[in-house]
Amino acid sequence: MGAAGDGRLRVGMIGGGPGADIGRTHRFAMRLDDRYTLTAGVLGRDPGRSAELAASLWIAPDRVYRDFGEMATAEALRPDGIDLAVVATPNDSHFPIARAFLAAGIAVVCEKPLTGDVASSAELVRLAAEQDVLLAVPHCYSAYAMVRHAARLVRDGDLGRITFVDVEHASGWAATPLERTGHKQAAWRTDPDTAGFPSVVADLGTHAYHLVRYVTGLQARQVSAQLHTLVPDRRVFDNATVALRLDGGTPGRLWAGMAATGHDHGLRIRVFGDRGSLEWQHEDPHHLSVSDLTGRTTVLAQGMTLSPDADRLTRVGLGHPEGFLEAFANFYRDLADELAARRDGLTGMPRELSFPTGVDGLRGVEFVAAVAGSHDRDSAWTPVHPPIGTEH
Amino acid sequence: MGAAGDGRLRVGMIGGGPGADIGRTHRFAMRLDDRYTLTAGVLGRDPGRSAELAASLWIAPDRVYRDFGEMATAEALRPDGIDLAVVATPNDSHFPIARAFLAAGIAVVCEKPLTGDVASSAELVRLAAEQDVLLAVPHCYSAYAMVRHAARLVRDGDLGRITFVDVEHASGWAATPLERTGHKQAAWRTDPDTAGFPSVVADLGTHAYHLVRYVTGLQARQVSAQLHTLVPDRRVFDNATVALRLDGGTPGRLWAGMAATGHDHGLRIRVFGDRGSLEWQHEDPHHLSVSDLTGRTTVLAQGMTLSPDADRLTRVGLGHPEGFLEAFANFYRDLADELAARRDGLTGMPRELSFPTGVDGLRGVEFVAAVAGSHDRDSAWTPVHPPIGTEH
Amino acid sequence: MGAAGDGRLRVGMIGGGPGADIGRTHRFAMRLDDRYTLTAGVLGRDPGRSAELAASLWIAPDRVYRDFGEMATAEALRPDGIDLAVVATPNDSHFPIARAFLAAGIAVVCEKPLTGDVASSAELVRLAAEQDVLLAVPHCYSAYAMVRHAARLVRDGDLGRITFVDVEHASGWAATPLERTGHKQAAWRTDPDTAGFPSVVADLGTHAYHLVRYVTGLQARQVSAQLHTLVPDRRVFDNATVALRLDGGTPGRLWAGMAATGHDHGLRIRVFGDRGSLEWQHEDPHHLSVSDLTGRTTVLAQGMTLSPDADRLTRVGLGHPEGFLEAFANFYRDLADELAARRDGLTGMPRELSFPTGVDGLRGVEFVAAVAGSHDRDSAWTPVHPPIGTEH
Amino acid sequence: MGAAGDGRLRVGMIGGGPGADIGRTHRFAMRLDDRYTLTAGVLGRDPGRSAELAASLWIAPDRVYRDFGEMATAEALRPDGIDLAVVATPNDSHFPIARAFLAAGIAVVCEKPLTGDVASSAELVRLAAEQDVLLAVPHCYSAYAMVRHAARLVRDGDLGRITFVDVEHASGWAATPLERTGHKQAAWRTDPDTAGFPSVVADLGTHAYHLVRYVTGLQARQVSAQLHTLVPDRRVFDNATVALRLDGGTPGRLWAGMAATGHDHGLRIRVFGDRGSLEWQHEDPHHLSVSDLTGRTTVLAQGMTLSPDADRLTRVGLGHPEGFLEAFANFYRDLADELAARRDGLTGMPRELSFPTGVDGLRGVEFVAAVAGSHDRDSAWTPVHPPIGTEH
Repeated sequence: MGAAGDGRLRVGMIGGGPGADIGRTHRFAMRLDDRYTLTAGVLGRDPGRSAELAASLWIAPDRVYRDFGEMATAEALRPDGIDLAVVATPNDSHFPIARAFLAAGIAVVCEKPLTGDVASSAELVRLAAEQDVLLAVPHCYSAYAMVRHAARLVRDGDLGRITFVDVEHASGWAATPLERTGHKQAAWRTDPDTAGFPSVVADLGTHAYHLVRYVTGLQARQVSAQLHTLVPDRRVFDNATVALRLDGGTPGRLWAGMAATGHDHGLRIRVFGDRGSLEWQHEDPHHLSVSDLTGRTTVLAQGMTLSPDADRLTRVGLGHPEGFLEAFANFYRDLADELAARRDGLTGMPRELSFPTGVDGLRGVEFVAAVAGSHDRDSAWTPVHPPIGTEH
Repeated sequence: MGAAGDGRLRVGMIGGGPGADIGRTHRFAMRLDDRYTLTAGVLGRDPGRSAELAASLWIAPDRVYRDFGEMATAEALRPDGIDLAVVATPNDSHFPIARAFLAAGIAVVCEKPLTGDVASSAELVRLAAEQDVLLAVPHCYSAYAMVRHAARLVRDGDLGRITFVDVEHASGWAATPLERTGHKQAAWRTDPDTAGFPSVVADLGTHAYHLVRYVTGLQARQVSAQLHTLVPDRRVFDNATVALRLDGGTPGRLWAGMAATGHDHGLRIRVFGDRGSLEWQHEDPHHLSVSDLTGRTTVLAQGMTLSPDADRLTRVGLGHPEGFLEAFANFYRDLADELAARRDGLTGMPRELSFPTGVDGLRGVEFVAAVAGSHDRDSAWTPVHPPIGTEH
Repeated sequence: MGAAGDGRLRVGMIGGGPGADIGRTHRFAMRLDDRYTLTAGVLGRDPGRSAELAASLWIAPDRVYRDFGEMATAEALRPDGIDLAVVATPNDSHFPIARAFLAAGIAVVCEKPLTGDVASSAELVRLAAEQDVLLAVPHCYSAYAMVRHAARLVRDGDLGRITFVDVEHASGWAATPLERTGHKQAAWRTDPDTAGFPSVVADLGTHAYHLVRYVTGLQARQVSAQLHTLVPDRRVFDNATVALRLDGGTPGRLWAGMAATGHDHGLRIRVFGDRGSLEWQHEDPHHLSVSDLTGRTTVLAQGMTLSPDADRLTRVGLGHPEGFLEAFANFYRDLADELAARRDGLTGMPRELSFPTGVDGLRGVEFVAAVAGSHDRDSAWTPVHPPIGTEH
Repeated sequence: MGAAGDGRLRVGMIGGGPGADIGRTHRFAMRLDDRYTLTAGVLGRDPGRSAELAASLWIAPDRVYRDFGEMATAEALRPDGIDLAVVATPNDSHFPIARAFLAAGIAVVCEKPLTGDVASSAELVRLAAEQDVLLAVPHCYSAYAMVRHAARLVRDGDLGRITFVDVEHASGWAATPLERTGHKQAAWRTDPDTAGFPSVVADLGTHAYHLVRYVTGLQARQVSAQLHTLVPDRRVFDNATVALRLDGGTPGRLWAGMAATGHDHGLRIRVFGDRGSLEWQHEDPHHLSVSDLTGRTTVLAQGMTLSPDADRLTRVGLGHPEGFLEAFANFYRDLADELAARRDGLTGMPRELSFPTGVDGLRGVEFVAAVAGSHDRDSAWTPVHPPIGTEH
């Protein structure tokens, strides 16, 4: 499948219709480094509004499809077919859509949670491997320059042996029963059928858990968890507290919530080692705090000379903040490097720390399932990932 | 037992010898409002050094005793005997010392943890009640003006129904094996025999738990807990994570640690309600952040016109920080009011929100025991306090 | 001059060659909302490297020019010529380049300081008016959503009568003699010939002064100023302190610096009124602090429902930070609206608070000149802008 | 003049009557380290209320005087007369009171501004020298442990050559016309007759200026200043901006205000050098930020091992904040060391960095006068202190 004449990668989007924030976010992120051209799509369920939006996005009318199946088939046949399909629909449709494009040999970016159960997520991972096409999951927080630097500090041993990890993604966006006020996004995210999983762990906890894995390189081996419904009569669990047993027995904890009243976003990670510790907060993403054994805290800022990955992903000078869209664009930049390398027949994935793939998406779904399992058994310790060797 | 001629309350101190920080802290705190006179003591185990320190504190030589038993007996007999005994010794001696003074009819301030097990703590509470003398435990963080205001906001319903509580007292002071370097305080605090309990939950977790109870008015009914040893070969658990089921099923969590590398002190509480939330941190104690459902955060400062208790406990104008010693002094000020009222035959304890007593100390010990019990049973949910009606 | 077939505005860039940060920043900013196509350019002085960069930016080879004069002439003649010329060269060449494009009837974005003296800046403003084409100056800080909201609060009287204004843009980027280490940007910015003005007031002070004008709506009538050289032997003044007499006698002060050791960026504004005050800092741009007469400070965050202009310029949800590139993109978005409206024969500039134009650039140059004049006369009060009625 | 039997220093207070915050603050501060006994006083103008307050402070009735003259005479004659007189009256009476006690051979602590003009301040300094008694002025902010450490860092060259200094003490306490609402303190502080000087520079600017001198060791040689009245019809200048030429030509600036709406206290200093910079803010007094040439900021906390003076003045462990009263107590502790040394015939003042004396008070008054002079001459540069050799 060839690239566009101008060298940009051709992208098709499924979902991300009028009013859908997440699709718009993907589009902003793809534009920043100018590596992609939005070429095809099914932008929402209403054909008229989909076509109208597509036109405003300069998509040719013959590349606007009625459904994802038609799109996958047609694009796979075109010599100038899309290089990448972006799945930005509600969670319950991730699986059939991602499967259709992967089966058609088209690389896929699929929003988290990858699917609604471990088996189907594992199937997507297997399919991507069989087809030798990329499957990526936009846990974009790990693409912040300062998160890359945090991961580098841990890898380089600056914190020493990791002793404790604390992560939280506790937002306040749904601290009221928004879903009963006609709020569209709240409606599908609190509907167990469309949300995929009946819990905020799928929606936000997977981001938090990915951040732990990304920064520390450690995975949860067991969890002891509690799911709560803070807003009465809500149909999904909107709060979760989880004790973690990470690789090697390192303890940690995770809090996911969407009803943390007064929080704007609420993603934060703290990593403690026997030589130092670090803290990163999404609401101040261009700084990273590093503390030593005496309690001295040094604030590093994006744009200083840090580690190669952090420097490479910094577009502006010291003191000029980058934000969420730039982090998302970093995900797409690394992905573009990989897609271009594959297109040109080069071996890809040269970077140790790069974008999250389907395996990361699967790990997230395994985590969601384990948390639910522990909750169902009154917080009993529950294994998370299959033992090494039996992994998908 | 009469007061000193000048109206100040007479105090005797047990422990707090040369180099003992906590005894010195008590003395600073008692001085600030000039309600006490340090009159008697056993200031450490070395008689010579105890006498020397006593002299520098203007204690008359005949009021410096060889041991607490002699002191309790002698002071109880004097017409100008002490009004209050302050127990600032290592944890394992709290029980016999406090018992001796209570039995002698002398009010007691005893450091936390009150004793090393629930039964002995309950015995002290019973003894204080029988003798009709005060037993107080200096969980002094609840005496900060802004913590009083936080408790007032919760009581007044400003946050609505409480939905989630998060508290941590995770210090980094013992992130290295200090106890193997000759550090005296580290030695006894990490020795299960002198520490009373083999866990940081006794030392710091009780402060955190008291803060939860004080601010929210809620008690833990069950805990699911994990104890960790982050510093290898340490003889006590230096880290603990606890899931809380508070009254009415309100969920919460608590983290206690003394090996949180890079943390200076690490006491912080966040309380979420269905109308608002609040956050208070000990390292910025003269501010209180209150957030509303839209995510707006308003920072209140000590010295503004707030609630009566907060205003009463503020000694200086807006923008002039007060700190730890002032909070400790607030504890002693409220205690002085109560002791003076009792001395003068008035009914005491008129304030809803006042200083922690032996019951609060007992609640802390029950909490420590429950956490240990849950840990021993692989994080199984474990009841904390006895049911209402069977309480001590 | 018609638009491109796809409706995007065609842009030509002068400067912004390989390694030039500012040109790259303009390109990032233009991409975000996909309203522009980079179509032509003179990307630096080396023709080979300019062509190479142009190719990587998908610019057709026949639209890469040897110099700006050739480009202005050729593009003005093409039916598909550029809609906008972006001048991102060192300061000393702003005037001839901007003049050439304006004279050719092509809209211009010109970096600050607009030119090296008041007369030439005024000439550009006159020329733009005569030609009826847009001249804009990217004081992009005023395009942050929270700065728009700050300006709205002042306009709406939320702060009451403005009593005092404090602004600073004191960076530490040149706290060492960087210009003697081969640092290219430091070299031209500290060379009086290329910098246009021999002072940091031109480079950073104009941003700070524009922020004052934008947020408060007040202009400086007189200044009393001091210029300093903090790095010995530097050829330009690298620090400036200015007392302001704003409209109506409102006092204020401004600090501009490029040698404020340890500062990363250092742009901050505080506005005080008789009912409230506000503070905004560029290193935390998605928050705005508003304080009332009691000293309570409320932190507003981008993404809350604020004022129409702030909401319109917010691309992502609450708690998802936007940064410098988004602010710059806001400038280009508003400019695109205006350019498109003019192209389509609509009357433009409908917004009260919008992007800075040549007049704003001229005001900046007048300010730089007045500061220098005051400094030369030992801080004597010096008029800044011509009286109303005699303005350019 | 002998000490009290118990070794504490005997103190008499003039002013600080019922409701007077500053007198109460002095008393809190003197108590903390238990080096003083409040022994005598004229606590306000109403004899009955003065006596009542004195009784509540355990002052013997025969040591409560009708006026300061009587007190100075009587105490000087007593063998157990006071060691120190604390002058905490409104500014206009500082001079006669301080003079009376100094003339009687009694050491004096006098609130700032020392007096209402340079000549009378100089006379007090001369008198203290002649009598060989101490005269101290409680610019207590310089007694914070972290300010001591800041001064130490500068002295030790950690910041390199000092290049720029920025200080502000801009409070919002009088942002409304409080003086017209019956607010007693506002009344006298905004009455030119009682305030001593008709400007906030005397009240708050002297603190800011002392902080500059203390931390940097530099004095202002010239000032260019502006005085403003932000609250209409106020009788004193409630805002001032000052450009500083410090020793060696180092530039700086100072802002003093009492009408900075929304500010709680507003004292902050930033010092820049050619190797690093530091920042200290009174509203977070137990931290000190130090930045290096790369822009990295390290936050130091009181209680870490810092410099000897900082460590000596820290009463509690790391992470336990101390506040305003502790800083004030530090002033009194150093003063007690000096008074005791003199009493015992030892040579005093061994510390390089210690408490502010009458000379510091005089320097403050000289500064206030110079600022007023510059303002009167339309911000003309005005000398501050007399040349070396002609100093008082």
